[in-house]
Amino acid sequence: MNNQLIYKSPSFLQHFMEKSFQKVGVPEKDAQICAEILITSDLRGIESHGIGRLRMYIDRLRKGLIEVTNTSKIVKESPTTAVVDGNHGIGMVIGHQCMNLAIQKAQEFGLGAVAVRNSTHFGIDGYYPLMAVNHNMIGMSFTNARPAVTPTFGTLPTLGTNPIAFGAPTDEDFPFLYDAATSITQRGKIEVLNRKEKPVFDGWVIGEDGKPLVDAGEILDKLMVKEAALLPIGGASEEGGGHKGYGLSTIVEILSSSLQSGTFLFALSGFDAQGNETRYRVGHFFFALNIENFLPIENFKKNIGALLRDLRSVRKYPGKDRIYTAGEKEFETEQIIREQGVPINSNLLSDLKYIDKLLELGEFEP
Amino acid sequence: MNNQLIYKSPSFLQHFMEKSFQKVGVPEKDAQICAEILITSDLRGIESHGIGRLRMYIDRLRKGLIEVTNTSKIVKESPTTAVVDGNHGIGMVIGHQCMNLAIQKAQEFGLGAVAVRNSTHFGIDGYYPLMAVNHNMIGMSFTNARPAVTPTFGTLPTLGTNPIAFGAPTDEDFPFLYDAATSITQRGKIEVLNRKEKPVFDGWVIGEDGKPLVDAGEILDKLMVKEAALLPIGGASEEGGGHKGYGLSTIVEILSSSLQSGTFLFALSGFDAQGNETRYRVGHFFFALNIENFLPIENFKKNIGALLRDLRSVRKYPGKDRIYTAGEKEFETEQIIREQGVPINSNLLSDLKYIDKLLELGEFEP
Repeated sequence: MNNQLIYKSPSFLQHFMEKSFQKVGVPEKDAQICAEILITSDLRGIESHGIGRLRMYIDRLRKGLIEVTNTSKIVKESPTTAVVDGNHGIGMVIGHQCMNLAIQKAQEFGLGAVAVRNSTHFGIDGYYPLMAVNHNMIGMSFTNARPAVTPTFGTLPTLGTNPIAFGAPTDEDFPFLYDAATSITQRGKIEVLNRKEKPVFDGWVIGEDGKPLVDAGEILDKLMVKEAALLPIGGASEEGGGHKGYGLSTIVEILSSSLQSGTFLFALSGFDAQGNETRYRVGHFFFALNIENFLPIENFKKNIGALLRDLRSVRKYPGKDRIYTAGEKEFETEQIIREQGVPINSNLLSDLKYIDKLLELGEFEP
Repeated sequence: MNNQLIYKSPSFLQHFMEKSFQKVGVPEKDAQICAEILITSDLRGIESHGIGRLRMYIDRLRKGLIEVTNTSKIVKESPTTAVVDGNHGIGMVIGHQCMNLAIQKAQEFGLGAVAVRNSTHFGIDGYYPLMAVNHNMIGMSFTNARPAVTPTFGTLPTLGTNPIAFGAPTDEDFPFLYDAATSITQRGKIEVLNRKEKPVFDGWVIGEDGKPLVDAGEILDKLMVKEAALLPIGGASEEGGGHKGYGLSTIVEILSSSLQSGTFLFALSGFDAQGNETRYRVGHFFFALNIENFLPIENFKKNIGALLRDLRSVRKYPGKDRIYTAGEKEFETEQIIREQGVPINSNLLSDLKYIDKLLELGEFEP
């Protein structure tokens, strides 16, 4: 496989994505939001959730699986809370709108929470807490997703990779930002290993027989037919703490579906009983906490900064010379990518050329 | 070692604890709260946080490390939020009061959050979400604790076992209740294995050299002198997802200290530079969400119940015949313990007899 990389500037790619979304009918402002969220992922080095997913979004928009216009509605509201029906619009547009709503509520009352149903894939979970951080708030974001992870003592893809994202401002050059699946890994990383023809870490995935699987191609095939499942953080056993990852994943599923009478588990597969593609009906939960309601923001920033620096300073594991805090590696990656551009492998390049031609954008082949 | 068990009724033990707390000067109502929280732990089968800790609380109260009277104060308040200074009172009394405050705020405004500093050990984290569940709310509770867990790529006890607790009502006989350390295990379990002379699971603990330790006695000694550290959920490596457990532990530490300018990490050791015992200055964070602000409570209960039953129903791991949801095992344990009594081993029995004699309670030896 040809894995030679070329590099494209973030601004070029962001512009390309904006044009692509607009060309399939997404209004300009919404197209800007989508491109901004996707490029944020690439800038942070999270290839699985950035421009690499553009073709998927464009395909789904063209098929009508995702609505190009946002007709989401607040179906219930109180001073600090709202329930929103996404009405099958673009998850990124809905997520952006709902996190803003949570932030507004927190600005007025100290806390804000918004539960969303009938949304679609909303890009990187970590984008939404960053919106809160920009308002000197703590932000949290949760989403469910199609079945991939087995409960402890099971072997079936049941829960989504159900990420938790938590962001907070600091007195450093970058915020604290935790953004991670409640499974050890996610499908995107296995796809990357498959493209690179590398084995999968022993302990990420089990087969129907409970035994670990390590061949990336085999895993991707078996996931499709439910003969393999990802494992929650902590792995397959209670001794290893797997029930904790499973429990956290369940919490994310509750927040993302039970409060909004939304879809959960198997109903999120994206296929009906006949194997036809269906609406995704993903659920999200957004939370904002206004720090000034607790203490002056500068004090908070100093407190958290001191904590993070203490964590980095402790005795190192043999052979390791640094301890990181959440969001630190991604911040450093962003500096590099802004300098050298976003790495584009040959698969992605052909996707982009395909979109370019299909939508007659004229950005790659004039 | 004599590990013969005797069984005592929960009501006898609760009464014994109430009397003990009162005898050292704790007001009657506060003594009732302490006894109620501790016996809840024993009823759920969590021996490490119940009556087994009574002697520790009594010792600390008698030494003045914990104040017998609760003089905690709200230092900042808004419609949905409060910051409380615990003023070194009993963590259980402070926790009970602060979770109630969060619940009141959620009743009025939909959400409530209370950050606490200068508290002390507050028993099982899971008790506080149960208070919210009794008001048809989702409850969450977090606390920091003395250094025990290393950050990823470190080997030093730095973070506490920093638990996350999350509770929600269901349409079943028992609520969903997640209550777990963000480390794979905690000191209490290693103490239990030490008493039983059993090895520790390979992967729970590493030494200064980064290698796993499995001898319980050696681990307990080395933890004291910082030559061993517990590992976060996911273990020592990023491949295994250890950075996720570490990140979650950091989130708990932020919520438990940064919002209230509280103490964190090494300052929670309980000892000063000269090795003298000091105040604990633990921090907590309580959160309540009023479900009726999102949807009718009966709908929520049905939604979450259906989700939990789906989780239990999936294909089982070879050799396993049940999948559990969080709080289910503990509910079943409670039925058994209410029937047969709380198991008391010989160590605990001599602790109770010691307290009985010291405080002249006359419950064991009239």
